[in-house]
Amino acid sequence: MKLFRYRKDGKVWPGVSAGDTHYSLAGHVQDIDRDFFESSDAFSKVEELIEKGQLEVIETPEFDAPIYRPGKIICIGLNYRKHAEESGMEVPKEPVIFFKATSSLCGPNDNVVIPKGSEKSDWEVELAVVIGKTASYVSKEEAMDYVGGYALHNDVSERAYQLERGGQWVKGKSCDTFAPLGPYIVSTDEVADPHNLNLWLKLNGEKIQDGYTSDFVFDIPTVISYLSEFMTLEPGDVISTGTPAGVGLGFDPPVYLKPGDVMELGIDGLGTSKQTAVAHPDA
Amino acid sequence: MKLFRYRKDGKVWPGVSAGDTHYSLAGHVQDIDRDFFESSDAFSKVEELIEKGQLEVIETPEFDAPIYRPGKIICIGLNYRKHAEESGMEVPKEPVIFFKATSSLCGPNDNVVIPKGSEKSDWEVELAVVIGKTASYVSKEEAMDYVGGYALHNDVSERAYQLERGGQWVKGKSCDTFAPLGPYIVSTDEVADPHNLNLWLKLNGEKIQDGYTSDFVFDIPTVISYLSEFMTLEPGDVISTGTPAGVGLGFDPPVYLKPGDVMELGIDGLGTSKQTAVAHPDA
Repeated sequence: MKLFRYRKDGKVWPGVSAGDTHYSLAGHVQDIDRDFFESSDAFSKVEELIEKGQLEVIETPEFDAPIYRPGKIICIGLNYRKHAEESGMEVPKEPVIFFKATSSLCGPNDNVVIPKGSEKSDWEVELAVVIGKTASYVSKEEAMDYVGGYALHNDVSERAYQLERGGQWVKGKSCDTFAPLGPYIVSTDEVADPHNLNLWLKLNGEKIQDGYTSDFVFDIPTVISYLSEFMTLEPGDVISTGTPAGVGLGFDPPVYLKPGDVMELGIDGLGTSKQTAVAHPDA
Repeated sequence: MKLFRYRKDGKVWPGVSAGDTHYSLAGHVQDIDRDFFESSDAFSKVEELIEKGQLEVIETPEFDAPIYRPGKIICIGLNYRKHAEESGMEVPKEPVIFFKATSSLCGPNDNVVIPKGSEKSDWEVELAVVIGKTASYVSKEEAMDYVGGYALHNDVSERAYQLERGGQWVKGKSCDTFAPLGPYIVSTDEVADPHNLNLWLKLNGEKIQDGYTSDFVFDIPTVISYLSEFMTLEPGDVISTGTPAGVGLGFDPPVYLKPGDVMELGIDGLGTSKQTAVAHPDA
């Protein structure tokens, strides 16, 4: 199944997509959040609701982020060889970890707001893994049991903030609207092989990122096992697994977002999203 | 007032301290969390409850962290000159930002668990600022209006994970129990001058950190204004403002936590806390 959250009447509601139909889960599920993934029977309960056939159909949902207030958004840096090369950095010997502020989360088709004075806002299509149950010191062999689902993510990044303002990358990763997520969190049974997915991004209609998760430097079990050595992964936590080559920083000369630029991105089986870059209203 | 959270009957409840008395807020306040700080009348409501004199007294509260699930824990690195020097790093030209995982939060007197295989776990007494209302692009002049309170924080750090395992500092800052916070969040009216506080830490009874917030490289308004340029600060977010000299990394040779070591720390007017280092149960 494909879980989502949608906007209606000034509020955000949970929903589920099965086949080509979008259903509302309002009144049945509190929200798609940590508690949902923590609950042992949440998925089977939704499955049952779909089978009963009494859910309200939503024709054209306006998507919000598919998870409410995740405890953390963890990102893996330089996890595709060619992206490390285009960034002028070495392919890492062990996973590079950074966080995005959870306040950067937004809907998959929301505008991406270029921060005031920013000149180097950039895109990064990524496969995000949503944690399904609490993971601490889990082995690679058991790691996939801790996955709750998969989602499409644009890890928007301000390269000057990230690389030229001193210190840690988080500074360029955490602006509001810098984490368009979704449209869906797709359950694991619908993703036959998460290590064989095409992921792509078009800028103004031209495909400039086009990679495969088979090219990960560190695969998903390695990433989950590794992370769980340094912190407890909690239900609903989002892990973004890195971006393939083709980011603006890698062009010669570099290309960055201008107001009006349109990013469209997608991953096999996880849907597509589309964001327009806009200037900050006070800029 | 001093807000706190305490454990009883397997649950965590909100409380408030006034004078030398600890009162329960169970049944009056949902929790000390983002919603509490977001509510415009939360403090005045608690003030009223204290004045009415009908709150239940709690004799010896077992403290939990004084805030429930903050959206983020943001730390400022190298914010005292002598600590930058002892770390062998330059005094930064603009604030260094990193995050701790919110899952690292624990009670002020909980055990600090040394991660499996860790040999370089270290202490850092810090003044934490809790955000009182949403802040985005706020000026230094107005920044202090966004403070909801102050708390004592031990920014426990694994130096090998932080500095020797590749990439970003977050790797050594996010282990479970690495953020003992509290006992209290002290309201701003009780902290006459947050830039003139003594903060100290004793290891096994010997005082090894002893600094003053007057020695900040970047003061609180500068930090809040700066952060708010890179991300929206939300009610309940915790900003830890850096540690003075005297961490284990700075000793020659360095000194790190061993099971049984006791850390006691305090800040003028914010209370004290005490953590015992213990081995991971599976180590």
